[in-house]
Amino acid sequence: MNIGIIGSGNVGGALGTRWAQKGHQIVFGSRTPDDADMKKLLDRAGKNARAAKLVEAATNDVLLFAMPWSIAKDVLSGLGNLAGKVLIDATNPLLPDLSGLAVGTSTSAGEQVADWAKGAKVVKAFNTVGSTIMENDSFSAGKPVIFYCGDDAAAKKTVHELAADIGFDPQDTGPLTQARLLEPFALLWISLAFQQKWGREFAFQVLRR
Amino acid sequence: MNIGIIGSGNVGGALGTRWAQKGHQIVFGSRTPDDADMKKLLDRAGKNARAAKLVEAATNDVLLFAMPWSIAKDVLSGLGNLAGKVLIDATNPLLPDLSGLAVGTSTSAGEQVADWAKGAKVVKAFNTVGSTIMENDSFSAGKPVIFYCGDDAAAKKTVHELAADIGFDPQDTGPLTQARLLEPFALLWISLAFQQKWGREFAFQVLRR
Repeated sequence: MNIGIIGSGNVGGALGTRWAQKGHQIVFGSRTPDDADMKKLLDRAGKNARAAKLVEAATNDVLLFAMPWSIAKDVLSGLGNLAGKVLIDATNPLLPDLSGLAVGTSTSAGEQVADWAKGAKVVKAFNTVGSTIMENDSFSAGKPVIFYCGDDAAAKKTVHELAADIGFDPQDTGPLTQARLLEPFALLWISLAFQQKWGREFAFQVLRR
Repeated sequence: MNIGIIGSGNVGGALGTRWAQKGHQIVFGSRTPDDADMKKLLDRAGKNARAAKLVEAATNDVLLFAMPWSIAKDVLSGLGNLAGKVLIDATNPLLPDLSGLAVGTSTSAGEQVADWAKGAKVVKAFNTVGSTIMENDSFSAGKPVIFYCGDDAAAKKTVHELAADIGFDPQDTGPLTQARLLEPFALLWISLAFQQKWGREFAFQVLRR
Protein backbone atom coordinates (compact mmCIF):
# COMPACT_ATOMS: atom_id res chain seq x y z
CA MET A 1 0.00 0.00 0.00
CA ASN A 2 0.94 3.66 -0.36
CA ILE A 3 0.77 5.16 3.11
CA GLY A 4 1.16 8.77 4.19
CA ILE A 5 2.34 9.30 7.77
CA ILE A 6 0.85 12.50 9.19
CA GLY A 7 3.19 13.15 12.09
CA SER A 8 6.50 11.29 11.98
CA GLY A 9 7.33 11.24 15.70
CA ASN A 10 7.64 8.14 17.88
CA VAL A 11 4.43 6.44 16.77
CA GLY A 12 4.42 7.53 13.14
CA GLY A 13 8.15 6.81 12.83
CA ALA A 14 7.85 3.32 14.32
CA LEU A 15 4.88 2.22 12.25
CA GLY A 16 6.11 3.79 9.01
CA THR A 17 9.51 2.13 9.41
CA ARG A 18 8.05 -1.30 10.01
CA TRP A 19 5.56 -1.03 7.16
CA ALA A 20 8.35 0.15 4.82
CA GLN A 21 10.42 -2.85 5.82
CA LYS A 22 7.43 -5.03 4.91
CA GLY A 23 7.34 -3.55 1.39
CA HIS A 24 4.74 -0.80 1.74
CA GLN A 25 5.52 2.58 0.16
CA ILE A 26 5.78 5.18 2.92
CA VAL A 27 5.75 8.96 2.77
CA PHE A 28 6.76 10.40 6.13
CA GLY A 29 4.94 13.71 6.43
CA SER A 30 6.53 16.42 8.52
CA ARG A 31 6.47 20.17 8.89
CA THR A 32 10.28 19.92 8.58
CA PRO A 33 10.95 17.06 6.14
CA ASP A 34 14.58 18.12 5.58
CA ASP A 35 15.75 18.08 9.20
CA ALA A 36 18.28 15.76 10.84
CA ASP A 37 15.67 13.67 12.66
CA MET A 38 14.00 12.83 9.37
CA LYS A 39 17.34 11.83 7.79
CA LYS A 40 17.87 9.35 10.63
CA LEU A 41 14.34 8.04 10.26
CA LEU A 42 14.77 7.51 6.51
CA ASP A 43 18.06 5.69 7.10
CA ARG A 44 16.28 3.27 9.42
CA ALA A 45 13.23 2.84 7.22
CA GLY A 46 15.15 2.04 4.02
CA LYS A 47 14.37 2.27 0.34
CA ASN A 48 10.58 2.17 0.56
CA ALA A 49 10.32 5.42 2.51
CA ARG A 50 10.69 9.08 1.63
CA ALA A 51 9.91 12.37 3.35
CA ALA A 52 7.56 15.15 2.32
CA LYS A 53 5.59 18.08 3.65
CA LEU A 54 2.41 17.07 5.47
CA VAL A 55 0.11 18.20 2.67
CA GLU A 56 1.98 16.04 0.15
CA ALA A 57 2.03 13.01 2.45
CA ALA A 58 -1.71 13.47 2.77
CA THR A 59 -2.25 12.83 -0.94
CA ASN A 60 -1.88 9.08 -0.27
CA ASP A 61 -5.05 7.02 -0.01
CA VAL A 62 -4.12 5.52 3.35
CA LEU A 63 -3.05 7.94 6.08
CA LEU A 64 -1.72 7.36 9.57
CA PHE A 65 -2.63 10.30 11.77
CA ALA A 66 -0.22 10.45 14.73
CA MET A 67 -0.04 14.09 15.80
CA PRO A 68 -0.19 15.49 19.32
CA TRP A 69 -3.79 16.16 20.28
CA SER A 70 -3.13 19.85 20.93
CA ILE A 71 -2.50 20.48 17.22
CA ALA A 72 -4.69 17.75 15.73
CA LYS A 73 -7.47 20.02 14.55
CA ASP A 74 -5.17 22.60 12.97
CA VAL A 75 -3.11 19.97 11.17
CA LEU A 76 -6.17 18.20 9.77
CA SER A 77 -7.70 21.43 8.52
CA GLY A 78 -4.49 22.14 6.59
CA LEU A 79 -4.32 18.82 4.73
CA GLY A 80 -6.80 19.57 1.98
CA ASN A 81 -9.66 17.31 0.93
CA LEU A 82 -9.60 14.01 2.81
CA ALA A 83 -12.88 12.64 1.46
CA GLY A 84 -12.75 8.89 0.82
CA LYS A 85 -9.32 8.34 2.35
CA VAL A 86 -8.61 5.72 4.96
CA LEU A 87 -7.45 7.73 7.96
CA ILE A 88 -5.98 5.72 10.82
CA ASP A 89 -6.36 7.82 13.94
CA ALA A 90 -3.67 6.90 16.47
CA THR A 91 -4.11 9.98 18.63
CA ASN A 92 -5.05 10.13 22.28
CA PRO A 93 -6.60 13.29 23.71
CA LEU A 94 -4.25 13.38 26.68
CA LEU A 95 -4.10 16.20 29.16
CA PRO A 96 -0.57 17.65 29.20
CA ASP A 97 0.32 15.99 32.54
CA LEU A 98 -1.18 12.62 31.44
CA SER A 99 -3.65 12.86 34.32
CA GLY A 100 -6.66 12.25 32.13
CA LEU A 101 -8.30 12.66 28.78
CA ALA A 102 -9.28 16.06 27.42
CA VAL A 103 -12.26 14.42 25.75
CA GLY A 104 -14.67 11.99 27.35
CA THR A 105 -14.16 10.71 30.86
CA SER A 106 -14.56 13.13 33.73
CA THR A 107 -15.94 10.91 36.46
CA SER A 108 -16.69 7.25 37.15
CA ALA A 109 -19.00 4.91 38.97
CA GLY A 110 -16.13 4.19 41.35
CA GLU A 111 -15.94 7.81 42.42
CA GLN A 112 -19.70 8.06 42.74
CA VAL A 113 -19.74 4.91 44.86
CA ALA A 114 -17.07 6.45 47.11
CA ASP A 115 -19.21 9.55 47.44
CA TRP A 116 -22.26 7.52 48.37
CA ALA A 117 -20.45 5.03 50.65
CA LYS A 118 -19.25 7.77 52.99
CA GLY A 119 -15.95 6.91 54.64
CA ALA A 120 -15.54 3.49 53.03
CA LYS A 121 -12.17 2.59 51.52
CA VAL A 122 -13.40 1.99 48.00
CA VAL A 123 -11.33 -0.14 45.63
CA LYS A 124 -12.50 -0.55 42.05
CA ALA A 125 -11.90 -4.15 41.03
CA PHE A 126 -13.39 -7.25 39.44
CA ASN A 127 -15.31 -5.12 36.97
CA THR A 128 -13.22 -5.79 33.86
CA VAL A 129 -14.07 -9.38 32.97
CA GLY A 130 -17.30 -11.33 33.08
CA SER A 131 -18.33 -13.70 35.80
CA THR A 132 -17.43 -16.79 33.75
CA ILE A 133 -13.80 -15.68 34.05
CA MET A 134 -14.19 -15.11 37.77
CA GLU A 135 -15.65 -18.61 38.15
CA ASN A 136 -12.69 -20.11 36.32
CA ASP A 137 -9.53 -18.14 35.66
CA SER A 138 -7.75 -20.95 33.84
CA PHE A 139 -6.33 -20.31 30.37
CA SER A 140 -3.69 -22.50 28.80
CA ALA A 141 -1.77 -19.51 27.39
CA GLY A 142 -1.36 -17.54 30.62
CA LYS A 143 -2.88 -15.79 33.60
CA PRO A 144 -5.64 -13.19 33.19
CA VAL A 145 -5.05 -9.75 34.68
CA ILE A 146 -7.39 -8.13 37.21
CA PHE A 147 -6.89 -4.39 37.42
CA TYR A 148 -7.77 -2.47 40.55
CA CYS A 149 -7.50 1.10 41.77
CA GLY A 150 -8.24 3.03 44.93
CA ASP A 151 -6.98 5.65 47.35
CA ASP A 152 -6.22 3.45 50.39
CA ALA A 153 -3.05 1.37 50.22
CA ALA A 154 -4.10 -1.18 52.83
CA ALA A 155 -7.49 -1.71 51.19
CA LYS A 156 -5.75 -2.25 47.86
CA LYS A 157 -3.45 -4.83 49.45
CA THR A 158 -6.54 -6.71 50.63
CA VAL A 159 -8.02 -6.71 47.14
CA HIS A 160 -4.69 -7.76 45.64
CA GLU A 161 -4.61 -10.82 47.90
CA LEU A 162 -8.21 -11.70 47.13
CA ALA A 163 -7.56 -11.61 43.39
CA ALA A 164 -4.30 -13.58 43.67
CA ASP A 165 -6.06 -16.16 45.86
CA ILE A 166 -8.29 -17.17 42.95
CA GLY A 167 -5.61 -17.30 40.33
CA PHE A 168 -5.59 -13.83 38.80
CA ASP A 169 -2.65 -11.56 38.06
CA PRO A 170 -3.69 -8.53 40.17
CA GLN A 171 -2.31 -5.17 39.08
CA ASP A 172 -2.58 -1.83 40.82
CA THR A 173 -3.49 0.94 38.39
CA GLY A 174 -3.33 3.87 40.82
CA PRO A 175 -5.90 6.12 42.54
CA LEU A 176 -9.66 5.69 42.44
CA THR A 177 -9.94 8.17 39.56
CA GLN A 178 -8.44 5.39 37.44
CA ALA A 179 -11.93 3.87 37.52
CA ARG A 180 -12.52 6.32 34.65
CA LEU A 181 -10.28 3.98 32.66
CA LEU A 182 -11.23 0.62 34.15
CA GLU A 183 -14.94 1.14 33.49
CA PRO A 184 -14.50 1.83 29.75
CA PHE A 185 -12.12 -1.16 29.68
CA ALA A 186 -14.93 -3.25 31.11
CA LEU A 187 -17.31 -2.00 28.45
CA LEU A 188 -14.72 -3.01 25.85
CA TRP A 189 -14.82 -6.55 27.23
CA ILE A 190 -18.62 -6.50 27.22
CA SER A 191 -18.87 -5.16 23.68
CA LEU A 192 -16.43 -7.79 22.41
CA ALA A 193 -18.34 -10.53 24.21
CA PHE A 194 -21.75 -9.52 22.92
CA GLN A 195 -21.82 -7.04 20.01
CA GLN A 196 -18.69 -8.54 18.44
CA LYS A 197 -19.88 -12.05 19.37
CA TRP A 198 -16.64 -13.32 20.89
CA GLY A 199 -18.60 -15.02 23.65
CA ARG A 200 -17.63 -14.78 27.28
CA GLU A 201 -14.61 -17.08 27.46
CA PHE A 202 -11.80 -14.59 27.00
CA ALA A 203 -9.69 -12.29 29.11
CA PHE A 204 -6.52 -10.25 28.85
CA GLN A 205 -3.00 -11.09 29.91
CA VAL A 206 -0.18 -8.66 30.53
CA LEU A 207 2.82 -9.40 28.32
CA ARG A 208 6.17 -8.15 29.60
CA ARG A 209 9.74 -8.33 28.40
CA MET B 1 -10.99 -12.78 55.74
CA ASN B 2 -14.65 -12.17 56.56
CA ILE B 3 -16.27 -10.89 53.39
CA GLY B 4 -19.78 -9.56 52.82
CA ILE B 5 -21.13 -9.90 49.28
CA ILE B 6 -23.49 -7.02 48.49
CA GLY B 7 -25.35 -8.42 45.51
CA SER B 8 -25.11 -12.21 45.06
CA GLY B 9 -25.79 -12.42 41.32
CA ASN B 10 -23.35 -13.67 38.68
CA VAL B 11 -20.35 -11.66 39.79
CA GLY B 12 -20.96 -11.74 43.53
CA GLY B 13 -21.89 -15.42 43.38
CA ALA B 14 -18.78 -16.39 41.41
CA LEU B 15 -16.30 -14.49 43.56
CA GLY B 16 -17.93 -15.40 46.86
CA THR B 17 -17.94 -19.08 45.92
CA ARG B 18 -14.30 -19.11 44.95
CA TRP B 19 -13.20 -17.18 48.04
CA ALA B 20 -15.22 -19.53 50.26
CA GLN B 21 -13.52 -22.51 48.64
CA LYS B 22 -10.19 -20.87 49.49
CA GLY B 23 -11.12 -20.67 53.15
CA HIS B 24 -12.50 -17.15 53.48
CA GLN B 25 -15.73 -16.65 55.49
CA ILE B 26 -18.43 -15.40 53.12
CA VAL B 27 -21.79 -13.81 53.85
CA PHE B 28 -23.85 -13.64 50.67
CA GLY B 29 -26.06 -10.58 51.03
CA SER B 30 -29.39 -10.57 49.25
CA ARG B 31 -32.76 -8.91 49.48
CA THR B 32 -34.15 -12.47 49.42
CA PRO B 33 -31.62 -14.62 51.32
CA ASP B 34 -34.07 -17.51 51.71
CA ASP B 35 -34.92 -18.06 48.05
CA ALA B 36 -34.09 -21.06 45.86
CA ASP B 37 -31.26 -19.33 43.98
CA MET B 38 -29.47 -18.65 47.23
CA LYS B 39 -29.87 -22.27 48.33
CA LYS B 40 -28.16 -23.39 45.11
CA LEU B 41 -25.42 -20.83 45.59
CA LEU B 42 -24.76 -21.99 49.16
CA ASP B 43 -24.60 -25.61 48.03
CA ARG B 44 -21.89 -24.69 45.53
CA ALA B 45 -19.96 -22.45 47.90
CA GLY B 46 -19.76 -24.97 50.75
CA LYS B 47 -19.29 -24.70 54.47
CA ASN B 48 -17.57 -21.31 54.59
CA ALA B 49 -20.56 -19.44 53.17
CA ARG B 50 -23.92 -18.37 54.56
CA ALA B 51 -26.69 -16.05 53.43
CA ALA B 52 -28.09 -12.93 55.08
CA LYS B 53 -29.96 -9.73 54.38
CA LEU B 54 -27.88 -7.06 52.72
CA VAL B 55 -27.62 -4.93 55.82
CA GLU B 56 -26.26 -7.87 57.82
CA ALA B 57 -23.78 -8.85 55.11
CA ALA B 58 -22.61 -5.24 55.18
CA THR B 59 -21.45 -5.57 58.78
CA ASN B 60 -18.31 -7.36 57.54
CA ASP B 61 -15.11 -5.35 57.25
CA VAL B 62 -14.50 -6.31 53.63
CA LEU B 63 -17.40 -5.87 51.21
CA LEU B 64 -17.80 -6.80 47.56
CA PHE B 65 -20.27 -4.43 45.92
CA ALA B 66 -21.73 -6.10 42.82
CA MET B 67 -25.17 -4.60 42.31
CA PRO B 68 -26.70 -3.39 39.03
CA TRP B 69 -25.85 0.27 38.53
CA SER B 70 -29.51 1.30 38.41
CA ILE B 71 -29.99 0.48 42.09
CA ALA B 72 -26.43 1.10 43.33
CA LYS B 73 -27.15 4.37 45.09
CA ASP B 74 -30.30 3.15 46.83
CA VAL B 75 -28.65 -0.05 48.02
CA LEU B 76 -25.60 1.76 49.41
CA SER B 77 -27.72 4.27 51.26
CA GLY B 78 -29.56 1.41 52.96
CA LEU B 79 -26.47 -0.39 54.29
CA GLY B 80 -25.79 1.77 57.33
CA ASN B 81 -22.43 3.21 58.29
CA LEU B 82 -19.67 2.07 55.94
CA ALA B 83 -16.91 4.24 57.33
CA GLY B 84 -13.56 2.47 57.42
CA LYS B 85 -14.69 -0.63 55.52
CA VAL B 86 -12.89 -1.98 52.47
CA LEU B 87 -15.51 -1.74 49.72
CA ILE B 88 -14.60 -3.49 46.48
CA ASP B 89 -16.63 -1.82 43.74
CA ALA B 90 -17.21 -4.24 40.87
CA THR B 91 -20.00 -2.27 39.24
CA ASN B 92 -20.08 -0.80 35.75
CA PRO B 93 -22.40 2.09 34.97
CA LEU B 94 -23.77 0.46 31.82
CA LEU B 95 -26.60 1.87 29.79
CA PRO B 96 -29.44 -0.68 29.64
CA ASP B 97 -28.63 -1.67 26.03
CA LEU B 98 -24.86 -1.90 26.73
CA SER B 99 -24.28 0.84 24.17
CA GLY B 100 -22.23 2.97 26.51
CA LEU B 101 -21.57 4.11 30.03
CA ALA B 102 -24.07 6.20 31.97
CA VAL B 103 -21.13 7.96 33.62
CA GLY B 104 -18.09 9.35 31.91
CA THR B 105 -17.48 8.87 28.21
CA SER B 106 -19.75 10.70 25.80
CA THR B 107 -17.41 11.39 22.90
CA SER B 108 -13.85 10.65 21.74
CA ALA B 109 -10.92 12.03 19.84
CA GLY B 110 -11.72 9.50 17.10
CA GLU B 111 -15.16 10.99 16.56
CA GLN B 112 -13.79 14.53 16.63
CA VAL B 113 -11.13 13.57 14.10
CA ALA B 114 -13.87 12.16 11.85
CA ASP B 115 -15.78 15.41 12.19
CA TRP B 116 -12.71 17.45 11.27
CA ALA B 117 -11.45 15.14 8.48
CA LYS B 118 -14.62 15.54 6.47
CA GLY B 119 -15.45 12.47 4.41
CA ALA B 120 -12.41 10.45 5.44
CA LYS B 121 -12.91 6.81 6.48
CA VAL B 122 -11.54 7.15 9.98
CA VAL B 123 -10.31 4.05 11.79
CA LYS B 124 -9.11 4.38 15.37
CA ALA B 125 -6.05 2.19 15.78
CA PHE B 126 -2.48 2.00 17.06
CA ASN B 127 -3.33 4.24 19.99
CA THR B 128 -3.35 1.62 22.72
CA VAL B 129 0.33 0.75 23.15
CA GLY B 130 3.48 2.84 23.07
CA SER B 131 5.80 3.18 20.13
CA THR B 132 8.37 0.79 21.61
CA ILE B 133 5.78 -1.95 21.15
CA MET B 134 5.10 -0.82 17.60
CA GLU B 135 8.83 -0.93 16.86
CA ASN B 136 9.06 -4.47 18.17
CA ASP B 137 5.98 -6.58 18.79
CA SER B 138 7.91 -9.61 19.99
CA PHE B 139 7.02 -11.15 23.37
CA SER B 140 7.99 -14.66 24.35
CA ALA B 141 4.62 -15.34 25.99
CA GLY B 142 2.36 -14.41 23.07
CA LYS B 143 1.17 -11.87 20.54
CA PRO B 144 0.05 -8.36 21.58
CA VAL B 145 -3.41 -7.24 20.56
CA ILE B 146 -4.09 -4.09 18.54
CA PHE B 147 -7.67 -2.93 18.83
CA TYR B 148 -9.31 -0.87 16.13
CA CYS B 149 -12.73 0.56 15.41
CA GLY B 150 -14.44 2.49 12.66
CA ASP B 151 -17.55 2.81 10.54
CA ASP B 152 -16.17 1.67 7.15
CA ALA B 153 -15.66 -2.08 6.72
CA ALA B 154 -13.14 -1.80 3.87
CA ALA B 155 -11.07 0.76 5.71
CA LYS B 156 -11.04 -1.50 8.75
CA LYS B 157 -9.85 -4.41 6.59
CA THR B 158 -6.93 -2.24 5.45
CA VAL B 159 -5.98 -1.43 9.02
CA HIS B 160 -6.35 -5.08 10.02
CA GLU B 161 -3.84 -6.11 7.35
CA LEU B 162 -1.42 -3.36 8.32
CA ALA B 163 -1.44 -4.46 11.95
CA ALA B 164 -1.10 -8.14 11.07
CA ASP B 165 1.78 -7.31 8.72
CA ILE B 166 3.91 -6.19 11.65
CA GLY B 167 3.10 -9.05 13.95
CA PHE B 168 0.11 -7.84 15.97
CA ASP B 169 -3.13 -9.64 16.74
CA PRO B 170 -5.60 -7.13 15.23
CA GLN B 171 -9.11 -7.13 16.66
CA ASP B 172 -12.16 -5.23 15.45
CA THR B 173 -14.02 -3.62 18.34
CA GLY B 174 -16.93 -2.17 16.36
CA PRO B 175 -17.99 1.31 15.24
CA LEU B 176 -15.98 4.50 15.64
CA THR B 177 -17.82 5.35 18.85
CA GLN B 178 -15.78 2.54 20.41
CA ALA B 179 -12.91 5.04 20.41
CA ARG B 180 -14.59 6.17 23.66
CA LEU B 181 -13.29 2.88 25.06
CA LEU B 182 -10.00 2.56 23.21
CA GLU B 183 -8.79 6.00 24.28
CA PRO B 184 -9.24 5.34 28.00
CA PHE B 185 -7.59 1.95 27.40
CA ALA B 186 -4.63 3.81 25.95
CA LEU B 187 -4.46 6.06 28.98
CA LEU B 188 -4.44 2.95 31.15
CA TRP B 189 -1.34 1.74 29.27
CA ILE B 190 0.24 5.18 29.66
CA SER B 191 -0.51 5.44 33.35
CA LEU B 192 0.90 1.96 34.00
CA ALA B 193 4.03 2.79 32.00
CA PHE B 194 4.71 6.09 33.74
CA GLN B 195 2.80 6.75 36.98
CA GLN B 196 2.92 3.09 38.01
CA LYS B 197 6.51 2.80 36.69
CA TRP B 198 6.09 -0.39 34.69
CA GLY B 199 8.22 1.07 31.92
CA ARG B 200 7.25 0.82 28.29
CA GLU B 201 7.97 -2.83 27.51
CA PHE B 202 4.57 -4.36 28.07
CA ALA B 203 1.40 -4.97 26.14
CA PHE B 204 -1.78 -7.00 26.38
CA GLN B 205 -2.66 -10.34 24.88
CA VAL B 206 -6.12 -11.78 24.36
CA LEU B 207 -6.55 -15.10 26.16
CA ARG B 208 -9.24 -17.39 24.76
CA ARG B 209 -10.52 -20.82 25.60
